[in-house]
Amino acid sequence: MARGPSAQRPKGTRDFAPDEMERRRAVEGRFRALARGFGYREVQTPTFEHLELFTSKSGEGVVKQLYAFKDKADRDLTLRPEITAPVLRFYVAEMAMQPKPLKLFYFGNCFRYEEPQSGRYREFWQFGTELIGPETPEAAAESVAFAHACLAASGLQGLELRVGHIGVLKALARYLAMDDGARQKLFALVDKREVQAKRSEAERILGPFLGGRAAQPLLGFLEDLSEGAKDRPTIQAEHAALLKELPEVGLALDSLGKTMEFLRAMGVQDAKEDLGVVRGLDYYTGVVFEFHSPDLGAESQVCGGGVYALAELFGGEPVGSTGFAIGFDRVLLALERSGRSPPPAKGLDAFIAPIGEPARPKAFALAAQLRAQGLAVDVDLMRRGPSKCLDYANSVGARKVVLLGSTELERGVATVKDMASGQQGEVPLEGLAEALRAA
Amino acid sequence: MARGPSAQRPKGTRDFAPDEMERRRAVEGRFRALARGFGYREVQTPTFEHLELFTSKSGEGVVKQLYAFKDKADRDLTLRPEITAPVLRFYVAEMAMQPKPLKLFYFGNCFRYEEPQSGRYREFWQFGTELIGPETPEAAAESVAFAHACLAASGLQGLELRVGHIGVLKALARYLAMDDGARQKLFALVDKREVQAKRSEAERILGPFLGGRAAQPLLGFLEDLSEGAKDRPTIQAEHAALLKELPEVGLALDSLGKTMEFLRAMGVQDAKEDLGVVRGLDYYTGVVFEFHSPDLGAESQVCGGGVYALAELFGGEPVGSTGFAIGFDRVLLALERSGRSPPPAKGLDAFIAPIGEPARPKAFALAAQLRAQGLAVDVDLMRRGPSKCLDYANSVGARKVVLLGSTELERGVATVKDMASGQQGEVPLEGLAEALRAA
Repeated sequence: MARGPSAQRPKGTRDFAPDEMERRRAVEGRFRALARGFGYREVQTPTFEHLELFTSKSGEGVVKQLYAFKDKADRDLTLRPEITAPVLRFYVAEMAMQPKPLKLFYFGNCFRYEEPQSGRYREFWQFGTELIGPETPEAAAESVAFAHACLAASGLQGLELRVGHIGVLKALARYLAMDDGARQKLFALVDKREVQAKRSEAERILGPFLGGRAAQPLLGFLEDLSEGAKDRPTIQAEHAALLKELPEVGLALDSLGKTMEFLRAMGVQDAKEDLGVVRGLDYYTGVVFEFHSPDLGAESQVCGGGVYALAELFGGEPVGSTGFAIGFDRVLLALERSGRSPPPAKGLDAFIAPIGEPARPKAFALAAQLRAQGLAVDVDLMRRGPSKCLDYANSVGARKVVLLGSTELERGVATVKDMASGQQGEVPLEGLAEALRAA
Repeated sequence: MARGPSAQRPKGTRDFAPDEMERRRAVEGRFRALARGFGYREVQTPTFEHLELFTSKSGEGVVKQLYAFKDKADRDLTLRPEITAPVLRFYVAEMAMQPKPLKLFYFGNCFRYEEPQSGRYREFWQFGTELIGPETPEAAAESVAFAHACLAASGLQGLELRVGHIGVLKALARYLAMDDGARQKLFALVDKREVQAKRSEAERILGPFLGGRAAQPLLGFLEDLSEGAKDRPTIQAEHAALLKELPEVGLALDSLGKTMEFLRAMGVQDAKEDLGVVRGLDYYTGVVFEFHSPDLGAESQVCGGGVYALAELFGGEPVGSTGFAIGFDRVLLALERSGRSPPPAKGLDAFIAPIGEPARPKAFALAAQLRAQGLAVDVDLMRRGPSKCLDYANSVGARKVVLLGSTELERGVATVKDMASGQQGEVPLEGLAEALRAA
């Protein structure tokens, strides 16, 4: 029969088979265990939201990347492209009066209309957190430390953690009274680490805002930020003259320094200060951070986050907020590429093959007893003979096969075959659960 | 600040706060544990599909209940209204060659555009299974038994399980050569248990297809089916003359009888044979079943399923298939209404309150150690004094508070306060994990 379009899944989406789902749930389970350890609790928001939730946060330009649609009452809705804005909407609407800090996490699917490519899908999953209330460096540090613990627990190795502070660049933009367009262009240059390579472009962007100031110290400062290799003390020493005019930069750098100290106290020794970490979104206000995996090539980022301000945008009071999102699919891809995927989950403890009609109902009664004792058990549902049953049990990775014939049943025994060793022997039915549990 | 529309969630959707998420995850966890016990493995499909996937299964009429939209390449897509069709699409495309049976489960969100009302939302969750391969009565029975085990494990009580066989009504429709429209009207009457009350309407529907046959025996038969109280042996005895002309009905009734026998062998003693169970969808072909909760009023169904044929529709070979879907939100609602919601999850083991600046980094180092030992620990992130920390710890349900002052740290001890008893005392830091674990 010909397959119509209905037999294909939509472009950029995926179906997950059982093996893959087990790997995903195993990693998710590690994240959940850590969330509990760090005192985070789960929230869940709708899969679609009012379009305005995201355009107010990210501007109208974001619409071209959204799965936006109108519902039957002509409301502008969209599948969510990320989950921070929904959680903050939820916070403002219903949780603003709760004792602070609120430590919230989510695990959900997001949607972006973009060309599918390796590790980028139109439907993808994010595990993320929002820490709402505190504005201290230790809060930022704990958020980084939690992300660090999750990624370590996932099994990934060789990750690079870069921590910066967006306040440095923002202070510079304010100092120069740059407009939004120019600021975004300048930040993008820093983000792409291109200030040095595209120095004349950087000069062109800064030009209209210099107001008689010399371009050179500013460009040198931007180059040092963009380079990434130079850390806070070096930058503070080399640009002392400029920084005297920019007291907000000094505050930002101090806050970053304290965050790094707390991070070390928390046991995170491999964080790299990097003032070139910019993050794409305007709502970040403080410490920002990214994790990159060596196993993903150019699109290496597996987690990003930072200190942000968003509650006001949704009508709430200003409140300290720090969060991150882990690109769950990227983590799984990096694990796969590096051969560090979680081991397969434990399969069936036993497959029961009733032999002959009268044994059939008894096999199901036995299965019910074994399941009640916590064993994973399957019974032949296709009325196959013993050898086909053994083939099937083998194909699904059952550890043992229980052959249940009528004459054996009369004697109160069953034949148990160990699929790894091939050994088999009679076991009394009352001792069956223990026999199946045995290695 | 005024709240724009962006501060509201879309109509008919929900935000789930941490307490509610814990209840949901607890029930989901019980379902997952049972899935493992029954040898089912998880699959996941995209949140949106080609519109045709559902219209080919359920007809164009279904579109008015769908969140259908066009993507930017003018493809007709829709948020999925259910997950059986996607799983069968996935099966046909990628799993058809795997050893049978395939025992698959899913847990996912579905979308229906309908007026929100108690227990009915525009985004809702389904836990469901598809058992692909076998066509035996024991396969149908095991599917029912698995659903039964899940619902029992959820904590619901007093559920009514109704098991019927759609083959009976379908055979009658074939016998009379009824067209689709008339058949659907007739089935709906039976489904709503209205054949008796609306006898003249039933007669009107049957009229054009009688072809000289007497209406009376057919109407009497339909009344008995619709009544629900009369079981298979009674019906077989009372309508012996009619059933002689309908050999397919006899086969269907036999298959139902065998399914009931297997169900009893599997330990399900409370199933009620009910030939009035129709299910809304045309694709059912055999045994059909529903679970109803006494805690939900008129909209009482919490689970429905049955034997169906769907692979052919997506270009696959015919294959035996049985599945069910549990209305996850309905289960949670029934649990809440009956006061049987799962108990709250265990909260924080300890909240650490550093006293004074120098104790702060040490508190985080200590928290990292305790977390590594499996404890759920939070540290004050807002630099509050001890009494405010105790208030917060109390509000989040922390079991103990660890007060960490500089002088105590020098002596290698901390003060531990039990929040339930109010008792407090000094504990050496090396014994802290055990002290926190103690009741």
